[in-house]
Amino acid sequence: MKRKAYYADYIYFEGKIHNDCYLLVTGDKIQGISNHADEEGASGYDIEHFHNSAIFPGLINTHTHLPMGFFRGMADDLPLMEWLQKHIWPAEGKWLSEDFVREASELAAIEMIKSGTTSSCDMYFVSDIIASVIKTSGLKAVIGVGVLDFPTKFGTGAEDYISKASDLYLKYKDCRQINISLCPHAPYTVSPDTYAKCVEFCGKHDLLLHTHLAEASDERPNAIEKYGKSTVQIMDEVGAFDLNKSIFAHCVHLTPDEIELMGSKKVNIALNIQSNMKLGNGFAPAQALMDAGANLTIGTDGAASNNDLDMISEMQTQALVHKGVQQSATAFSADTVLRMGTCNGAKGLGLKKTGELKRGNMADFIVVSFDEPHMTPVYNPVSHLVYSAKSSDITHTYVNGQCLMKDREVLTLDETKVKDNARKWAQKIKDNK
Amino acid sequence: MKRKAYYADYIYFEGKIHNDCYLLVTGDKIQGISNHADEEGASGYDIEHFHNSAIFPGLINTHTHLPMGFFRGMADDLPLMEWLQKHIWPAEGKWLSEDFVREASELAAIEMIKSGTTSSCDMYFVSDIIASVIKTSGLKAVIGVGVLDFPTKFGTGAEDYISKASDLYLKYKDCRQINISLCPHAPYTVSPDTYAKCVEFCGKHDLLLHTHLAEASDERPNAIEKYGKSTVQIMDEVGAFDLNKSIFAHCVHLTPDEIELMGSKKVNIALNIQSNMKLGNGFAPAQALMDAGANLTIGTDGAASNNDLDMISEMQTQALVHKGVQQSATAFSADTVLRMGTCNGAKGLGLKKTGELKRGNMADFIVVSFDEPHMTPVYNPVSHLVYSAKSSDITHTYVNGQCLMKDREVLTLDETKVKDNARKWAQKIKDNK
Repeated sequence: MKRKAYYADYIYFEGKIHNDCYLLVTGDKIQGISNHADEEGASGYDIEHFHNSAIFPGLINTHTHLPMGFFRGMADDLPLMEWLQKHIWPAEGKWLSEDFVREASELAAIEMIKSGTTSSCDMYFVSDIIASVIKTSGLKAVIGVGVLDFPTKFGTGAEDYISKASDLYLKYKDCRQINISLCPHAPYTVSPDTYAKCVEFCGKHDLLLHTHLAEASDERPNAIEKYGKSTVQIMDEVGAFDLNKSIFAHCVHLTPDEIELMGSKKVNIALNIQSNMKLGNGFAPAQALMDAGANLTIGTDGAASNNDLDMISEMQTQALVHKGVQQSATAFSADTVLRMGTCNGAKGLGLKKTGELKRGNMADFIVVSFDEPHMTPVYNPVSHLVYSAKSSDITHTYVNGQCLMKDREVLTLDETKVKDNARKWAQKIKDNK
Repeated sequence: MKRKAYYADYIYFEGKIHNDCYLLVTGDKIQGISNHADEEGASGYDIEHFHNSAIFPGLINTHTHLPMGFFRGMADDLPLMEWLQKHIWPAEGKWLSEDFVREASELAAIEMIKSGTTSSCDMYFVSDIIASVIKTSGLKAVIGVGVLDFPTKFGTGAEDYISKASDLYLKYKDCRQINISLCPHAPYTVSPDTYAKCVEFCGKHDLLLHTHLAEASDERPNAIEKYGKSTVQIMDEVGAFDLNKSIFAHCVHLTPDEIELMGSKKVNIALNIQSNMKLGNGFAPAQALMDAGANLTIGTDGAASNNDLDMISEMQTQALVHKGVQQSATAFSADTVLRMGTCNGAKGLGLKKTGELKRGNMADFIVVSFDEPHMTPVYNPVSHLVYSAKSSDITHTYVNGQCLMKDREVLTLDETKVKDNARKWAQKIKDNK
């Protein structure tokens, strides 16, 4: 079994910074760290040096729509429903195909590798194709199969979408890079009955249920008019909060009672702060949710509403904005936000042995250069990662001990070809608009 | 006179995007653009090609404390007054020297060049040294001389600080890279009488008055207790809003009447959104100020409270956060924010012939690569600059037609040496703490 020792000036191991040491990796697993700065501490290991660098756990993006990067910047500065109904849904209706989804997922995979995300949690259609791209890329992901109450070119209705998830679950159940989830889209496109079916299916197969919840302010009055209850009440009644594995994206517009309920059930929440601001949906009550007991994780949402898949920038925004909202400089410290972007994410997605660098965990980690002027000098490496770093400072990305990016070069996909494909699609979309 | 033509896929000229053309530069000035994509449009010019790139005006950072980068990340997640009184002021008291300021200013200059800032507006001490570093770097800046009511190692009191500004003004009055400003620090460290003296001095010499205003929530009650009036009232009474040139940093805690007053006087405001959030001061009423008629510009504040000098990230945050605050996806569009970061900044600082690419203006511009996966594909280049770009995408920075950075290599300062100096200072600071 290959034994590798990675030297860095700073290693974030078991939740704290260790200076001048080696991260020891045997095969695909973390063996430990050596606190000896000399090579003795890594004897018997093949040594690689990352000078003026830090090693952190790979980042975990808990809410994405990976193929939407082909629509990045196509329709900005618009409200959620106008953006969705007048631009995104028509474009998806017109352009989505297996080729589109494959090539867009390749772009997303490269973007994630280059910005330090090692695991993501996706919600989309044509999910089989997305899973195969993720597998090729070397990344890990929870691949979600979208469920709607109406037919699209990807399915005839709820039963059909769920059966696709069932097929995909069987296909990937022995693949350690891929988990499958079921994704009822949102309470405004999926009925309580269908949610109940999804909950039953997820419970039966121990799959993650992944859905949008309380994103825009009109979700509540619309649901009350249609169903006589709020969408959080619906989730609670169908048992979504009691599943072994479930994650709820956005959770912006909640009442104090709902926050209390979701906290008491230790619900996993994927905050999408940049997307929520960009679409004018406001700020999730993150502090109250955390205080109530919810598990806060970080997602980027799709690159059409963000406009990227950059978890470094998302962590920075999370740390800064909630200090502003609460007028408290001590809210959401760099340490807290780093945990949200790593171990909380792994927990929220039910992923084992990732999200933290410790003995026995899989070797999912990133190397961050502290060499650029904006990272100089260094007092507190965690602070630097959250408040000063850019994803361009990430030089290497490893998943299961495999190097997916070396000195900013992605090793598992052909970046030039993938970007060329993206430009061809955008040209087609622009010409036919 | 040297005639250069810079090809780019997108050029933001006279406030809008032109595709596939040349930016024509004669000597240090912009001559125009050629709308011919073939070389004929640039005949007689020495041609340089920036493929898959955009040219934008250089960014204008209207509020900085350049030498504070040596304290970057030294004391994070702390409230303003604790941060200032327990960490920053003691560190400044102990460590500031001419060498410190020179070497820290060099780091800041390199950071600005690499993140596309061509003009900045600084407030600090030992200003002569900062001005000389800026001059060497090739950048432009308004160099501010700090004024306090109490003695420090940099001056004996208000009169002495003001006389330093007078000397510096005479020294640099024919230097086209450097303007001098007078910087009464803040209403909680400078009396109304001293503000009145500063206003008189600035009026007499047509210098910019640059001060902090309404940053933290306790400024108002403290001023009312001490002076019987708010700090905005003080500024108004001493005539600071009626000066030909003045800029007010922060402006977070304002009443509706104060917003109306400052708008009606078309006051120049340096918003520092990341710093205001990071120190727990909240959000400036940016929309109300803009609607009332104030000129909104963007500053980073010092890198000790940001933690960088990155105007790209600052523009993105400005565009996103105010959409969140207002729950409106149409607030602070990418175009609006780009103007705040460029032409509004130039206007706010009283800088002529910069902040916009147009015939006759100085050739202050940046080249932004649109090649990375997170910038692919392209529908709207302005949107991409604000919502997707990172400062690492900036490949070239030009000031007065001079190339200061070529393919990410800074040409006017020795980056390796400057970073080494920064690390040595940080080690000294850590060892003596």
